[in-house]
Amino acid sequence: MTDLTTALRTTLDGRWADLKNEARTEFDPAMYMPPTKELTMDEYRARVAEQVREIAATDHPRRGFPVAQGGSGDLGGSVTAFEVVGHADLSLMVKAGVHWGLFGGAVSNLGTQRHHTAYLPSIIDATLPGCFAMTETGHGSDVQSLGTTATYDKDTDEIVVHTPTPAARKDYIGGAARDGRMAAVFAQLVVDGENHGVHCVLVPIRDESGAPMPGVTIGDCGAKAGLLGVDNGRLTFDEVRVPRTNLLNRYGDIDENGVYTSPIENQTRRFFTMLGTLVRGRISVAGGAGAATRTALTLAVTYAGHRRQFAAPGGDEEVRLLDYRVHQRKLLPALATSYALQFAQNDLVAFMHDIQGAEQLDEEKQRELESRAAGIKVASTSHATATIQMCREACGGAGYLAVNRLPALKADTDVFTTFEGDNTVLLQLVAKGLLTSYRDSFGDLDTLGMVKFGARQFAGQLVERTAARGLVQRLIDAAPGRDSDKGPTDRGWQLDLFEDRERHLLETVALRLRKAGKPGADLFAVFNECQDHVVEAARAHVDRVVLESFVAAIDGCQDAPAREMLSRVCDLYALSTIEAHKGWHLEHGRITPARSKQVRAAVGDLCAALAPHAQTLVDAFGIPTSWLGTELLEPVAG
Amino acid sequence: MTDLTTALRTTLDGRWADLKNEARTEFDPAMYMPPTKELTMDEYRARVAEQVREIAATDHPRRGFPVAQGGSGDLGGSVTAFEVVGHADLSLMVKAGVHWGLFGGAVSNLGTQRHHTAYLPSIIDATLPGCFAMTETGHGSDVQSLGTTATYDKDTDEIVVHTPTPAARKDYIGGAARDGRMAAVFAQLVVDGENHGVHCVLVPIRDESGAPMPGVTIGDCGAKAGLLGVDNGRLTFDEVRVPRTNLLNRYGDIDENGVYTSPIENQTRRFFTMLGTLVRGRISVAGGAGAATRTALTLAVTYAGHRRQFAAPGGDEEVRLLDYRVHQRKLLPALATSYALQFAQNDLVAFMHDIQGAEQLDEEKQRELESRAAGIKVASTSHATATIQMCREACGGAGYLAVNRLPALKADTDVFTTFEGDNTVLLQLVAKGLLTSYRDSFGDLDTLGMVKFGARQFAGQLVERTAARGLVQRLIDAAPGRDSDKGPTDRGWQLDLFEDRERHLLETVALRLRKAGKPGADLFAVFNECQDHVVEAARAHVDRVVLESFVAAIDGCQDAPAREMLSRVCDLYALSTIEAHKGWHLEHGRITPARSKQVRAAVGDLCAALAPHAQTLVDAFGIPTSWLGTELLEPVAG
Repeated sequence: MTDLTTALRTTLDGRWADLKNEARTEFDPAMYMPPTKELTMDEYRARVAEQVREIAATDHPRRGFPVAQGGSGDLGGSVTAFEVVGHADLSLMVKAGVHWGLFGGAVSNLGTQRHHTAYLPSIIDATLPGCFAMTETGHGSDVQSLGTTATYDKDTDEIVVHTPTPAARKDYIGGAARDGRMAAVFAQLVVDGENHGVHCVLVPIRDESGAPMPGVTIGDCGAKAGLLGVDNGRLTFDEVRVPRTNLLNRYGDIDENGVYTSPIENQTRRFFTMLGTLVRGRISVAGGAGAATRTALTLAVTYAGHRRQFAAPGGDEEVRLLDYRVHQRKLLPALATSYALQFAQNDLVAFMHDIQGAEQLDEEKQRELESRAAGIKVASTSHATATIQMCREACGGAGYLAVNRLPALKADTDVFTTFEGDNTVLLQLVAKGLLTSYRDSFGDLDTLGMVKFGARQFAGQLVERTAARGLVQRLIDAAPGRDSDKGPTDRGWQLDLFEDRERHLLETVALRLRKAGKPGADLFAVFNECQDHVVEAARAHVDRVVLESFVAAIDGCQDAPAREMLSRVCDLYALSTIEAHKGWHLEHGRITPARSKQVRAAVGDLCAALAPHAQTLVDAFGIPTSWLGTELLEPVAG
Repeated sequence: MTDLTTALRTTLDGRWADLKNEARTEFDPAMYMPPTKELTMDEYRARVAEQVREIAATDHPRRGFPVAQGGSGDLGGSVTAFEVVGHADLSLMVKAGVHWGLFGGAVSNLGTQRHHTAYLPSIIDATLPGCFAMTETGHGSDVQSLGTTATYDKDTDEIVVHTPTPAARKDYIGGAARDGRMAAVFAQLVVDGENHGVHCVLVPIRDESGAPMPGVTIGDCGAKAGLLGVDNGRLTFDEVRVPRTNLLNRYGDIDENGVYTSPIENQTRRFFTMLGTLVRGRISVAGGAGAATRTALTLAVTYAGHRRQFAAPGGDEEVRLLDYRVHQRKLLPALATSYALQFAQNDLVAFMHDIQGAEQLDEEKQRELESRAAGIKVASTSHATATIQMCREACGGAGYLAVNRLPALKADTDVFTTFEGDNTVLLQLVAKGLLTSYRDSFGDLDTLGMVKFGARQFAGQLVERTAARGLVQRLIDAAPGRDSDKGPTDRGWQLDLFEDRERHLLETVALRLRKAGKPGADLFAVFNECQDHVVEAARAHVDRVVLESFVAAIDGCQDAPAREMLSRVCDLYALSTIEAHKGWHLEHGRITPARSKQVRAAVGDLCAALAPHAQTLVDAFGIPTSWLGTELLEPVAG
């Protein structure tokens, strides 16, 4: 490994570099890489369950739990560990994420001492495999409208969990079909005839022998596009009774007298506070998507570096795929975006670690964390979907063979744009966060609620910088005017353009939403009319946040050649993003046609200039060859 | 079915409507739909082999062969039948396509009487399962550079087929791993020490018992992303001897004296003439991709019509997905494009039927057919990849379940952008055809060769209309000037803009390529510098061809309400395409910023206006419910 590669890798690795380096040497590929032979779904599920038990014997699961709860309290390390597993079998990442992250996270964050004492030891060592039973057949994105009920029965001091309709069946629940013994069930809590909104109740679903508990009907979602090692299933409850104390009662409790109490008066606010504590799942998915994308890019770039096709005119030697401009245009902007997203992910993980690990939770920062987690999750998973697809195609027929891993990378990550929050819904959440001041809107965070707030007020502080605030401001202040001689690689100009696009989209959408405030306006019609505008504003915001993370990472890099290289990669990320939106920039007079053509030419030049370094850039991802091991890595003798 | 649906369906069905209607009633879904339970790869392959035998007992396979060769000579019907099977199990479509279309097509088109008599009866009834052994591990797109040799041995009057290097191994060969008994092997034909270029030789690869023939090593490509019912394998030949008469000798023969003769002097021209006869494979893949996309759209639109999520403000009723603007923006332009591509496919099939079925082959028309087949194949398969992905995401978690078919539709069609010609390579072929007059360039059709021709000359007649020539010209002539009051739904304005974009891209790329003619120019560098420009020009051409087919189909529709509906769908296709390229149009002063905003608004309005008719529009695809049968079609009781 060259000095440059090492320096780049160090910058990419970020704050939890030690953990990543440890994994690079200790991780056993034979144990954790995807299966290399055909397995039935049952065999695959059994394999992944065994992998989970192996991991349970290590110290890793403790990271995600506070010291006071028997963990080691390294939240950032916990999420980073999931990211590392994202280079391995993604079924394992998801299965482990469901058990420790979602189920364990629910008990840890929504429960209290009694639950921590009773369950966390056997959750940490995975002897109590758990499920996170939130989504229902009829409600996925709109969790507040779940149909499952948890009704307190004063006479027996029990909670009765029930599935009133087929649509209220819990669906797609990881761990339900085969291994889960207990489920954290989200349900409408009804006490004394009053619905207090969605709460979480622990419900045993299988006995020690593995048989379903009385009243629990368990279905199997069967085969899926990918993640075949995860046993997704369906749960239907027929008046299943659990002790009152099975309610995870941190944010809402029923006392011995059968009286409901909560530290948070407002029901919607309570609901979103509960959900907010579970933000790590979303961050982990973003991390796993990023890892899978880097694996795919490493394979496709390496292949393009040795695969040759068609002789150049006047020569006998065949041309490498990587030397074709169209191929460069496919691979290199995606590679640059993966760099950008890694830096954004690092900042996000560190932010989460500091906020959620603090003695006292800063509510405003927690809201900001949730918004950023949603935005980066969308960016990272949609980038994975597009980029892994592109890598498959860039490897031709070889990319279609299972032995070369791209098919599984594609199929396994495909659902990442859906679970832990549908990407389109999440973007609306991001936009809403930007359009409303957190405090005022906190009582009503449903997606459509944003109309009312957009109508009533327009938060002044639209653009709050996330990383390297001072540096970014200095760069923008020093930026040339539009279309100056300085050229499109001026960082201040790029930052200014990103920020300007975000601000304009937000300002104009706020103006449109304000119409909804007029008497008699059809709120839904007003919102719907500009829904695509809302989503676009959120995307522009995420683009800007990601670029700022890149700028901050370059600023933090101490190695001059690495800084120089990162700067060019950042140019490619920034300019290919601007090029993708050039229609908008031209339409709004943000760039001239001449500047637009300059940007296109600069993207082409950057692709050509970076192509000879593409292998270095993927090597810096630091994925050990033993984790890659496919036929794509080496040329076949001709 | 309403009158409108029927009228739309009749227009969509086109010239082979009878065949499609027959299939709708006769096709047995239990037999031909994808498997509904988990199968091992071996079981799946056995199932598909059995399906092929079932089809062999019908009259369908005869369609693809001329009457003189024992077929029924319905070429268009043959390709249409593959399109229908594209609604069923795509493994079956590909397996059947390899055997009858590619293997049978090679024997029919490249062989002569002796091969027709000896093999076609057992090819038609599938008792001689065959392979099409063209692609090698080292050469896929560049078929002219294949490494396999077929060397004539005068002493024994035999041809020796040999794999000289690992890279020359035949790879991804459908039918090789399990069922194939004979392969049409493409190899460099060497006679008396002279290489006459790639020819096709029939080589038995398995004996009656299924054991590999002496000297033939058969490998298995194993699991793939999709198409698990197709037994793709690898063939390595160790000096395998076959009789001289196994050479498919229509375009190149070795006589009894061991002398090579060919009716086509120029080796490259001979090669492309041979390949050109096999164009039906490419057209069939386009058809199958279209069918799979229509299945996916039918599922996603139906789901969006009953799936509800989030209550509208001020109401209790939850909103249908189809009523959300962002969801409309995902589904409806894709639906409009599927309409457009169906009309383009219909025109292509009819064109092929008339050209290839004629007594005397019109060489110029044959070249045009190859170019159009390449362009429509690219458009149809890239649309399939993007749209099926979008449909999966639009159905959320349910879209990820195998039972709902979207995963298989995605995985099975994924390789369509690669096989039968990599899409990027095909686009360059299309561009080359446009940049050079066919006759002059015919001797040198390799991709990079286009540089030389672009440099030397620039064909005058760039824009040759393909469908409804007179009508299109009248519409353009009547078109308002740029940005007039007539609005973006004026068809003449749309046609003019499409045509103008194509012409400008072609003219400017020709100017850039001309630089290569200067003394000392690095031909590859010049070509590579504008490779993305070349590809873009080809895309613009295909867009225009597709729009013209749409316009012609509307013109041919006799039902007034259907015409009206088709006209709005055509607007959406045209305007969403213009919107996708608005950056280019603005950069080149083709539209003003105000017009660009009008286009965006018009796309949104069309989406909203067509959403209530979306179910009618997919119903008109005429896919029987029994062919769809998934959980997505009906709401779950809530």
